[in-house]
Amino acid sequence: MNNDTNVHWHEHQVSRSKRENLKGHRGCVVWFTGLSGSGKSTVANIVDYKLYELGVHSAVLDGDNVRHNLNAGPGMLKQNHDTEFSQRFGLGFSAQDREENIRRIGAVAQLFAESGTIALTAFISPYRIDRDRVRQVNAAEDFIEVFVDAPLEICEKRDPKGLYKKARAGEIKGFTGIDDPYEPPLNPEIVLNSADNDPETVADEVVRYLRKSGKIS
Amino acid sequence: MNNDTNVHWHEHQVSRSKRENLKGHRGCVVWFTGLSGSGKSTVANIVDYKLYELGVHSAVLDGDNVRHNLNAGPGMLKQNHDTEFSQRFGLGFSAQDREENIRRIGAVAQLFAESGTIALTAFISPYRIDRDRVRQVNAAEDFIEVFVDAPLEICEKRDPKGLYKKARAGEIKGFTGIDDPYEPPLNPEIVLNSADNDPETVADEVVRYLRKSGKIS
Repeated sequence: MNNDTNVHWHEHQVSRSKRENLKGHRGCVVWFTGLSGSGKSTVANIVDYKLYELGVHSAVLDGDNVRHNLNAGPGMLKQNHDTEFSQRFGLGFSAQDREENIRRIGAVAQLFAESGTIALTAFISPYRIDRDRVRQVNAAEDFIEVFVDAPLEICEKRDPKGLYKKARAGEIKGFTGIDDPYEPPLNPEIVLNSADNDPETVADEVVRYLRKSGKIS
Repeated sequence: MNNDTNVHWHEHQVSRSKRENLKGHRGCVVWFTGLSGSGKSTVANIVDYKLYELGVHSAVLDGDNVRHNLNAGPGMLKQNHDTEFSQRFGLGFSAQDREENIRRIGAVAQLFAESGTIALTAFISPYRIDRDRVRQVNAAEDFIEVFVDAPLEICEKRDPKGLYKKARAGEIKGFTGIDDPYEPPLNPEIVLNSADNDPETVADEVVRYLRKSGKIS
């Protein structure tokens, strides 16, 4: 490799703005937070679909794709790794494990945003400090916190996965809203009332925000 | 949310093939492996640029963007997390830490591939078992292993970061090629001779492979 070649490719590295120009919109992180049953994942997926219809490049990070590999539990890791490794890096639901769960998701969302993609994350993410750390590692304009706001009573009545019932019966410990706190955002970019509105309606609010803030046209 | 709404959005979830159609190509993981100084990162970035010029949506994962956040060391994590947390999840260069380093990168590359993006990863990834685990978690057609093949003597002569010199002086322990093994792939999809060819030439080989295998048109 001579120096000319070296200079050549450095000049031609693909900047974030080049990636964004190719995609026709900005990259960012749209961070949905709220109680289990508040509708985070449903709304994130509807936003994802609406963006797709607009030709916008987005990606959803949620329990379905993150818990199977990146943030797998010790039991799943043990299928391919030794016990010590699986205990150290596998994630359960302790406070420390939740902290790392959110940290990794925030780091991945940042990589997506920097590639020009709109990353939509849907996790309870109950602790304010964990969400604020993700906000801090991202550029200020890149992080859009969406509080999916529905009262516990309504979420518990919906109980789409039967988890509240198990938590009330003591079969699940440390369940957010029952015996573990949910700390609502103090200054979220968007608050969605998902108790009184259907998911389509609140998803539209998110798309409008992205348009208004210049992320998409 | 009534049942109709529920059905509606499930029908309209964005499948991987929809994302790939929007982007105009397939997603996949292109995994560059080789000694320090073999040219992995240089070649990955040139491939990235060539793909960009073709209108292909790609992303590079390398030490520059991964070591600062997702796979940060204990020292960096300590800036925002407590000591116990940072020791547990921060990654150094022990065999166990390298195993987790590659595991996380593989998981993130998979998320990119599933979003329809071509993920280009550039890490020494010296151990065969770690690379093979990444191959296993990905769909067979999604994982393209690229052996960036240059003899140790040439890599050590290039020594772009002065690391071989430090390793020979005993200032760095466990350095791949000096006092830690590099296990070349047994059946890589692509072998690049980066000792006798310039980076542009071998980058073209990767692009040709992507075209031939139907990832891009």
